[in-house]
Amino acid sequence: MRERLYLYDTTLRDGQQTQGVQFSVAEKRMIAQALDALGVDYIEGGWPGANPTDSEFFAARPPTRAVMAAFGMTKRIGRSVENDDVLAMVLDAGTPAVCLVGKTHEFHVTTALGCTLEENREAIAQSVAHLVRRGREALFDAEHFFDGYRANPAYALDCLRAAHDAGARWLVLCDTNGGTLPAEVGRVVSEVIAAGIPGERLGIHCHDDTGTAVACSLAAIDAGVRQVQGTLNGLGERCGNANLVSLIPTLLLKEPYASRYETGVSHEALAGILKTSRVLDDILNRVPVRAAPYVGASAFAHKAGLHASAILKDPATYEHVPPETVGNARVIPMSNQAGQSNLRARLMQAGLAVDPKDPRLGRILEVVKEREDQGYAYDGAQASFELLARRALGQCPEFFEVKRYRVTVERRKNKYDRMISLSEAVVVVKIGGRKMLSVSESMDETGTDRGPVNALAKALAKDLGPYQACIDSMKLVDFKVRITQGGTEAVTRVIIDSEDDEGRRWSTVGVSPNIVDASFEALLDAIQWKLIRDLGQPVQEAAE
Amino acid sequence: MRERLYLYDTTLRDGQQTQGVQFSVAEKRMIAQALDALGVDYIEGGWPGANPTDSEFFAARPPTRAVMAAFGMTKRIGRSVENDDVLAMVLDAGTPAVCLVGKTHEFHVTTALGCTLEENREAIAQSVAHLVRRGREALFDAEHFFDGYRANPAYALDCLRAAHDAGARWLVLCDTNGGTLPAEVGRVVSEVIAAGIPGERLGIHCHDDTGTAVACSLAAIDAGVRQVQGTLNGLGERCGNANLVSLIPTLLLKEPYASRYETGVSHEALAGILKTSRVLDDILNRVPVRAAPYVGASAFAHKAGLHASAILKDPATYEHVPPETVGNARVIPMSNQAGQSNLRARLMQAGLAVDPKDPRLGRILEVVKEREDQGYAYDGAQASFELLARRALGQCPEFFEVKRYRVTVERRKNKYDRMISLSEAVVVVKIGGRKMLSVSESMDETGTDRGPVNALAKALAKDLGPYQACIDSMKLVDFKVRITQGGTEAVTRVIIDSEDDEGRRWSTVGVSPNIVDASFEALLDAIQWKLIRDLGQPVQEAAE
Repeated sequence: MRERLYLYDTTLRDGQQTQGVQFSVAEKRMIAQALDALGVDYIEGGWPGANPTDSEFFAARPPTRAVMAAFGMTKRIGRSVENDDVLAMVLDAGTPAVCLVGKTHEFHVTTALGCTLEENREAIAQSVAHLVRRGREALFDAEHFFDGYRANPAYALDCLRAAHDAGARWLVLCDTNGGTLPAEVGRVVSEVIAAGIPGERLGIHCHDDTGTAVACSLAAIDAGVRQVQGTLNGLGERCGNANLVSLIPTLLLKEPYASRYETGVSHEALAGILKTSRVLDDILNRVPVRAAPYVGASAFAHKAGLHASAILKDPATYEHVPPETVGNARVIPMSNQAGQSNLRARLMQAGLAVDPKDPRLGRILEVVKEREDQGYAYDGAQASFELLARRALGQCPEFFEVKRYRVTVERRKNKYDRMISLSEAVVVVKIGGRKMLSVSESMDETGTDRGPVNALAKALAKDLGPYQACIDSMKLVDFKVRITQGGTEAVTRVIIDSEDDEGRRWSTVGVSPNIVDASFEALLDAIQWKLIRDLGQPVQEAAE
Repeated sequence: MRERLYLYDTTLRDGQQTQGVQFSVAEKRMIAQALDALGVDYIEGGWPGANPTDSEFFAARPPTRAVMAAFGMTKRIGRSVENDDVLAMVLDAGTPAVCLVGKTHEFHVTTALGCTLEENREAIAQSVAHLVRRGREALFDAEHFFDGYRANPAYALDCLRAAHDAGARWLVLCDTNGGTLPAEVGRVVSEVIAAGIPGERLGIHCHDDTGTAVACSLAAIDAGVRQVQGTLNGLGERCGNANLVSLIPTLLLKEPYASRYETGVSHEALAGILKTSRVLDDILNRVPVRAAPYVGASAFAHKAGLHASAILKDPATYEHVPPETVGNARVIPMSNQAGQSNLRARLMQAGLAVDPKDPRLGRILEVVKEREDQGYAYDGAQASFELLARRALGQCPEFFEVKRYRVTVERRKNKYDRMISLSEAVVVVKIGGRKMLSVSESMDETGTDRGPVNALAKALAKDLGPYQACIDSMKLVDFKVRITQGGTEAVTRVIIDSEDDEGRRWSTVGVSPNIVDASFEALLDAIQWKLIRDLGQPVQEAAE
């Protein structure tokens, strides 16, 4: 019988403490749903009352199988639990679980709170009892527990006991400053359990300030805690929290954890963890970390020649777990064996049947590799991938040719002496034998300048002759810009999502050191894909 | 008396196994010099004979205080040590130390090498003896040691003994596949020492495939090894090697390591480790990882309001080590979660003392909130925040005024009938009473078009009259673009990181529906911040 280990995610609360991160309500909902699909046991949604976004999220929180928790702090000194408005707002969020942070370090009690040790202990006990009376699953987040235990073990334990005796389901040992190392975490947890607090009531919350948050969490599990807190991709204040995307595969795939513990994450869900990790990267517009354990693009890449040849004989020679268990794939630079069946499946999806022996398959893989080295990314731009393959297969008709374009961005004072900006674009295309010039500016209906890419898109779509009707039914719905690596230089990658009247949605990619150029490339691909889908072949016209 | 712990860097060898990394000889020399200044004991320079760059590096290796090591493998089966040309090339590099990798896992011996266990053991013994006879300090890199020990402990130990008895100074336990967890590393090391191999002859070499390479290295030290291998910034095959930039500060600053061990790194050198880390990022043209332990830009950033107010009373409340010990600095970012105490702390850091009762504090917070609603984000753009506050406090002198600018992006065929793109920018500024026009284009030294923002930045910085010298010493090091929500419309947020000759780094933000405009705003802030820092006040000039 395996013991149950509980996973508590705090991406939406502690993760939001990351410098530069501020989730919208819609993003919080997306993340909560991704976490729920993964199978974590608890989702900490934020601190109701602390900011408008968190309050709004809880007001209409998405239904989840995971237990939703609201975060807050123990009642303030000198008030009763009933008269603490900060605590009231946390309870008003109506979540089944509530986690309250409280002091357990005597130094923080006397200097930060400025009260007696006993007053703080009472505040913990009363706050937890209050949650329990209201029928909530109560968690006590023991702030600075390890530092506090080092300074005054008896008092730190007293605080835990106060929460325990008041009915807290979980006492979470929090290494707030992130400075405790794995060996000490293990030792302190053992001492806490030896002092009478049962391990099945203990949780662990680690930060990565020494690069050991995952190891500290494992050390705590080894010593007996049964709840682990962390975040997706290790997001969190300063150096981040324990990375659940690293921890979960270890708990499910590696010994002694795999045979000793059971979590809420199934092996099927584990195979989706790479995608869960990417959901967060997409929301933050971050480039996924290539070297990330388990889910990084390089995690199963075998560059050394000796390694690669051994891998061909038996992958276990240089892989500690099979890549597919976490939704990842082996990368062997010298062999495109594995790539070809993948490629054929993707071509089939685009309606392009290719014989397995067709030598053009190898050529397509080469082109994809070359272009990925330049900074292209085809996973998020299926339509551009399809066009690339069509070109290699000679199945990509040319509907029109762009001869040249020019965009001007100007910022100056208008006649009312106010600074205004305006962009103007000229595009010259050749359709059949006809040359067509179009010009557009970037002002929208409200008089706002929407910038050079907008002007260019409007000019390009303004007069495409026989294709105009087809283009008119499409619109640009999203535009993602990322600075990435192209060879040794930074380049701009633009991904454009388009949509048409029939509700079809497709994505295209452009790459260039020049952002306008990258955008234009993605725009052209978007139009090209639509024309192939709707018309198949260019309209026959007599050349002028 | 503290025990000596030896640091062995393999950035130039295992680090080069990273996907996409290929150092030039000049870069190898730069990295070797940075490592030597830091104070590591050994620098592994590469595998002489394995590729032209490594051979060339050794042929003219820079003089270092650190012991230079060449990497290679034990002699091949069926040849004598004298007749193995691969081994000969390694010795020919003439380094004082040589590290040879060899098999210790029976499965790899029989399948990969295809020889008997005894033949492999003999190859190890003879290869090491060969190095010793040639007067080299010999290291034996025990490949797959932990997996091998799990499979057949007696044989894995036999291989170590063979190298030990042949005179190897160090036997390095290598977790080649990166799958061994810290508890097991500790246990196995203890058993190896209990089996008679002294800890002062043992080294540890870990990979980060489970995110625990640093913790595994610490566990090995706790168990008795006295040499630690790793790389700068954790570079290395797949998920990388143990990160020395995380490990070294822990060993020097944290207990039990600080009082138990001595390394070759002084506390003075430690204060330069942030710069050492950036040297490698610069060479790889990588954006430094914000959340990196100790050296990340966010490692000492306190976003939560509760944390920031306590930090003001005593930094130890939320910092596990003082940031200056590793050359880093405390950051108290602004965000809509933080209140007035964060604001005052942040202003204080910028040299702006404001009375807690000053009503302008409330006004600044309002402006921050308004602008965050428009899409600005200040916790990743400290310098722009400071300027915003200075404007509200009437402490933001105007050095120059931009009257207007115009950027043109053009794509057309050149005289060779190839499509090319080019951007050109004109900027008009007024300094004192003088009006100055500058024009630049976007072509870099290699003939690549770097786009409109590049042209604009060059034109703006081309002629700023009395401020030219100050501006010349700064450069744009990163450029981040994000499409975000400004009110109800999508806008572009640009964050620019700048750096100057003194190694100062600052971030500014611009927001607009027009990406060129957003970039220009961030550029202006970057220059303005630098001028305030360096000059304080505008230069007095007679108006024309």
